[in-house]
Amino acid sequence: MRDEFRADLKTVSQLLVDMAEGVRAAMRQATRALLTADRGAAETVIAGDAEIDEVYRHVEERVFDLLARQAPVASDLRAMITALHVAADLERMGDLADHVAKTALRRHPSPAVPAELRPVFTDMATIADRMAAKIGSVLAEPDADLAAELDRDDDAMDELHRSLFGVLLGEDWPYGVETAIDATLLGRFYERFADHAVNAGEHVVYLVTGETTAG
Amino acid sequence: MRDEFRADLKTVSQLLVDMAEGVRAAMRQATRALLTADRGAAETVIAGDAEIDEVYRHVEERVFDLLARQAPVASDLRAMITALHVAADLERMGDLADHVAKTALRRHPSPAVPAELRPVFTDMATIADRMAAKIGSVLAEPDADLAAELDRDDDAMDELHRSLFGVLLGEDWPYGVETAIDATLLGRFYERFADHAVNAGEHVVYLVTGETTAG
Repeated sequence: MRDEFRADLKTVSQLLVDMAEGVRAAMRQATRALLTADRGAAETVIAGDAEIDEVYRHVEERVFDLLARQAPVASDLRAMITALHVAADLERMGDLADHVAKTALRRHPSPAVPAELRPVFTDMATIADRMAAKIGSVLAEPDADLAAELDRDDDAMDELHRSLFGVLLGEDWPYGVETAIDATLLGRFYERFADHAVNAGEHVVYLVTGETTAG
Repeated sequence: MRDEFRADLKTVSQLLVDMAEGVRAAMRQATRALLTADRGAAETVIAGDAEIDEVYRHVEERVFDLLARQAPVASDLRAMITALHVAADLERMGDLADHVAKTALRRHPSPAVPAELRPVFTDMATIADRMAAKIGSVLAEPDADLAAELDRDDDAMDELHRSLFGVLLGEDWPYGVETAIDATLLGRFYERFADHAVNAGEHVVYLVTGETTAG
């Protein structure tokens, strides 16, 4: 029974690692779609979101099945509940990559992001990518220190998010309201992506240490 | 054992009903803060969000405890997983009310929403309130028909959300970029509130009927 639980848990963990990799790839492609007006990249992300959702359903089914068959308690039960939380965060990160791709597509062939905002979105995307990679790593090999780094990444993301508004509200903003609306929503998508990465990381830390971190 | 499970399930359901009522009240107050620049209302919402989060933790603890002690299977296990999903949606709805209140506070004593946008936000808030009320009702007494109404409410919310952009992008928009940014974010907060209400409703329908609805 115990060995069987370990094997099942490993299957669930692998599904989560797959999700994290899928989500990371999706946000990379969505960013490419955004910054280079790459229609194919946008369409790939949008089509691929259903696959991420499908893996999410697999995780839920596996966990449900495992709870029903094995009735785990204590740390094993905690691992199952944690898997559900992490899967939900990853699924939402996939949605946010999809939103970025859709924004890029809506403005295609024009770029959704004007030249003045390319540096801040490039930096936001770099942090988002780093955070998604760390989620994949801590899921493959739990590491509370690495998970804790996500908080610092998130601080950097928040700082970029503030600087984005600085540009939008500058006296020399030449692009009008529509571009400001797109940039506002895009900024929020990257910032929420980072928030969910932090949440997922906190759940993994909780799994490893049994302690919640201050949110 | 079975009676004990019923009693525990009832406790969890009551916590969810409490959360739904708390979230509904929070969004009502946040809307008042937004539309009447009511500082006290905004502060009440922001202070109250910790209470909603606290009830969320209680639900999680109860469910964890119940899974560990009683090892429910089949529909009882499904009820427990559903409770976790619904609680997560409600917690997030509370966050969104908090975001609306914070936006109101950031512009206080100026109104965050100019006169031209008051009608659309009034309508969005009315739908949000109706949806939160329905979640409370279906949790207190599962009703798949009522839950299904949430989809139609959400369509109305999406329509209002589109009309909001229509106003912002109109040629005669006189308020500049900062007000447009606030309105964009506020629109998203109400729209996401409605999305989470739909999710919560779908989970309750699933609990009642065993069938997922098309998302």
